[in-house]
Amino acid sequence: MKLIESVPNFSEGRRKEVVEKIVAEAKKYDRVWVLDWSMDADHNRSVITLVGEPENLINALFDMTKKAAELIDLRNHTGQHPRMGAADVIPLVPLYNTTMEECVEYSKILGRRIGEELGIPVYLYEKSATRPERQNLADIRKGEFEGFFEKIKDPLWKPDFGPDRVHPTAGVTAVGAREFLIAFNVNLGTRDVKIAEKIARAIRFSSGGLRYVKAIGVDLKGRGVVQVSINITNHKKTPLYRVFELIKMEAERYGVPVLGSEIVGLFPLESLLKTVSYYLRTDLNAKKVIESNLLEILVRESEK
Amino acid sequence: MKLIESVPNFSEGRRKEVVEKIVAEAKKYDRVWVLDWSMDADHNRSVITLVGEPENLINALFDMTKKAAELIDLRNHTGQHPRMGAADVIPLVPLYNTTMEECVEYSKILGRRIGEELGIPVYLYEKSATRPERQNLADIRKGEFEGFFEKIKDPLWKPDFGPDRVHPTAGVTAVGAREFLIAFNVNLGTRDVKIAEKIARAIRFSSGGLRYVKAIGVDLKGRGVVQVSINITNHKKTPLYRVFELIKMEAERYGVPVLGSEIVGLFPLESLLKTVSYYLRTDLNAKKVIESNLLEILVRESEK
Repeated sequence: MKLIESVPNFSEGRRKEVVEKIVAEAKKYDRVWVLDWSMDADHNRSVITLVGEPENLINALFDMTKKAAELIDLRNHTGQHPRMGAADVIPLVPLYNTTMEECVEYSKILGRRIGEELGIPVYLYEKSATRPERQNLADIRKGEFEGFFEKIKDPLWKPDFGPDRVHPTAGVTAVGAREFLIAFNVNLGTRDVKIAEKIARAIRFSSGGLRYVKAIGVDLKGRGVVQVSINITNHKKTPLYRVFELIKMEAERYGVPVLGSEIVGLFPLESLLKTVSYYLRTDLNAKKVIESNLLEILVRESEK
Repeated sequence: MKLIESVPNFSEGRRKEVVEKIVAEAKKYDRVWVLDWSMDADHNRSVITLVGEPENLINALFDMTKKAAELIDLRNHTGQHPRMGAADVIPLVPLYNTTMEECVEYSKILGRRIGEELGIPVYLYEKSATRPERQNLADIRKGEFEGFFEKIKDPLWKPDFGPDRVHPTAGVTAVGAREFLIAFNVNLGTRDVKIAEKIARAIRFSSGGLRYVKAIGVDLKGRGVVQVSINITNHKKTPLYRVFELIKMEAERYGVPVLGSEIVGLFPLESLLKTVSYYLRTDLNAKKVIESNLLEILVRESEK
């Protein structure tokens, strides 16, 4: 079996019936499973977590995008989170027996269909990007929906698929393959947020730290502690344990205790296996885990 | 969903067609999955790993025991491993949303059926034991098949279910609820097996160590290293990390490096979650793991 994860973001976080209709498009498909979905009214945005076999998942994502384009009108959309499309961004993440290269291929298949069949301009981002300035989603999204009517005229921002003009109500969409992103927070036993900021600088890529780490220092007001808040954008190459141990090491120079950590949202089994393998000085893989074996059998059964 | 694991041992490790017929009995059932099975010709014994929903799993185990009684004649059985029955021992292990108490109840349902319907005396062991001297499987099995014709006459060894006489060809069977057993080995960078033996003594229950640890020192001849070989009989109460860290601590007093560890066979996701939670100073559970969520959905689908 091959499994891909996708966490599409849609620009609707207030009308529950709209999000439910988008989710329903995914549920039509065999071997596509909706693990989780959530709405945020302030951001006016929803995030849906899907896992599925590649072909079916791509078809499901296409149908969800089509439904979002029918039901969401960005001309009336307000919210705190930057956005540029009804289906704003669709990442594909290799989960099980699937390579990054395959996810790149699938992102192009999906992007082409969205562009040609729905008339929505598509930008390939991250590992699927066709030029360096499109790797970073934030660079693509700069200017947002309203700004794109001008931005798209710049030859540098010619879409990878679809027409050279913004869809009047559904905007533009980013599609791309990327690694699973782990949001990881570490709490420090001090009230001094400067220490959290210094540690964040020490570990993050942008200031000389680990390649796949983004980090900031945050004051958890009222709790008497501060936090290093981290995104690990490639946990295979920059594993959780290395980030955690580096924070412990840096915290020590300030005599500050590491109180604990938390992983935000869902995370893949592989990140656990890598962590345990490091600490127990061994080399574990999913084939050794009872639940993985059972999952493999059940996915096989569901194919029948 | 509720899941129980069972690892029944059958006294046949040479005739593949016999073991396959026993395995086939399990495969008849919905929501019972054979994860693994293996035969050992020297031990003349096979071990089958099953996971399933309680009622169906119990029915599958009964049918497997019935088939084993038809096909295995202990009067002709030789092998290195001690044995007392065609179906020698049937453990039930709580895996998912199932308590130890429920496994004890199910072991009694299964034991009663084997005793009454198949005429095979059954001894409840471990958490299901009806008296202290029956907790330890080795104590029940002492004397083996041949010795049981006398042993069973002793009122102390009156079976929990079934007739007061040994089944002439299928012997007697032990059934019981227990925790998942983790076999865990730690390699030390020394040729001196006495150090492995000293560390084994330091950590094991029988000589003052951790409650659910059995351990011995082993010389890995030819590899230039020695090993502490461990069974953790309750990884929930004596977690992997505590055993490993204690070994590291003891190894340090001899100036001996801990080279690495290995977990033998399959292990449950929960043991990974407990290990990561300790080292990353957090508190993870299965609901946060993508693959667990998917497993839950698929088991629910398989019920339809």
